[in-house]
Amino acid sequence: MRWEPGSRSRLQEAALALYGERGFENTTVAEIAERAGVTERTFFRHFTDKREVLFWGAGALQELLVDAVAGAPDSAAPIDAVAAALAAAAALFEQRREGSMLRQDIITANTELRERELIKLAALASGLADALRRRGVEDPAASLTGEAAIAVFKVAFERWVDTTNRLTLTQLIRDSFDELKAVTAATSPPAH
Amino acid sequence: MRWEPGSRSRLQEAALALYGERGFENTTVAEIAERAGVTERTFFRHFTDKREVLFWGAGALQELLVDAVAGAPDSAAPIDAVAAALAAAAALFEQRREGSMLRQDIITANTELRERELIKLAALASGLADALRRRGVEDPAASLTGEAAIAVFKVAFERWVDTTNRLTLTQLIRDSFDELKAVTAATSPPAH
Repeated sequence: MRWEPGSRSRLQEAALALYGERGFENTTVAEIAERAGVTERTFFRHFTDKREVLFWGAGALQELLVDAVAGAPDSAAPIDAVAAALAAAAALFEQRREGSMLRQDIITANTELRERELIKLAALASGLADALRRRGVEDPAASLTGEAAIAVFKVAFERWVDTTNRLTLTQLIRDSFDELKAVTAATSPPAH
Repeated sequence: MRWEPGSRSRLQEAALALYGERGFENTTVAEIAERAGVTERTFFRHFTDKREVLFWGAGALQELLVDAVAGAPDSAAPIDAVAAALAAAAALFEQRREGSMLRQDIITANTELRERELIKLAALASGLADALRRRGVEDPAASLTGEAAIAVFKVAFERWVDTTNRLTLTQLIRDSFDELKAVTAATSPPAH
C-alpha cells in the first residue's frame, strides 16, 4: 500500500468544497476521491463514510477537553476547569475560521448533519461531566457544569462563524461565560 | 370511521408496556394495536410510527413552555421567565412519574431513541430562546438562557426518574437552577 502524504487533509478539503458547491446529499465518495486525486480505497482508509469527514475531529476535541479538565489546578473551581478546557480548544480553532464557516454552512443546510452535531455536543457535555466527577465534583454540579460549558461553546461558536463577526473565538467564549453568569444571577430570590 | 374513546392513551400504555417487556426494536405496531384492542389503522390515525408514541407529547410541551415565557410578567428577568415555564411543565409531569420512568428506561436502552430525545431537547432550547427574543431579550442572552433552562430541565428530569429519588420534579428543577447559579458564580474573576 502506497503512503500518500497529506491525503487525509486533501480529502477533507475536497469534501468540504464539494459539499459547499453541490450539497452534502449530492456528493459521492467517488467524486471526493477524484477531486483529492486519490482512490476511493484511500478515502475509506481515512473515513467510514462521507458524513465522517465532517465529524472525525470530534474524538480529538473530546480528548483535548477532558485532558484539560484533568490537568486544571486542584484549586480550580469546576467552571474554571471547563473554561480552561474551552480556551484550549478555542486556540486550535482560531486558525481555521474559514474551514469552520464552510463546515457550519454545510451542517446547517442538512437536518441529519444538524442532528449529528447535536449528538456530538451532547457527548462532549457528558465527557466534561465525567472528567469533573473524576476531580471529585459531585452531581448535579458536575452534569450542570458540563452542560453549561457546552451551551457556552455552542453559542460562542455560532457567533464566531457568523460572517459579520470580528472577535476571536477565545473572546466570544469568555463573553458567553460572563453572559451566562449574568443571566443566571439575574433571577429574583426563589419563594421557598 | 368508529370513534374509539381513549384509544390514544390505550395505545400509549400498550406500547410502553411492550417496549419495556421485549425492547423497542422487538415490538411491532401490530402487537401494540393488538394489546390495546384496536386495529393497526387506528394506531396510524394517532401516530406516524412506533417511535412517535414516545415523542408525540414534545409539541405540546414546547407550546406550553413558549406560552409560559410569553405570559410571564414584563418585569420578569429572562431566567425567571424560563423558570416559570419549567415549573408549569413540571406540574404536568408530577402525576406521571411511573410512566416517565418507564419511558426513560426505554429511551436509555436505545441509541436512536437517545438521539431523538437530544434533538427534541435542543428544539425546546431554541423554542425558549425564540420566545425570549419576542420579549425583547437580545442575543447571546436569549440563546444562553434557553440552553441553560434545558440543561437544568435535563439534569433535574434525570434525577427525578431515578428510582431512589423522593423529591418532586418542581423541587429538583428549583434545586438545579440554584446549583447552576452557584457553579456559574464560583468562577474566579477573569483576567481581562
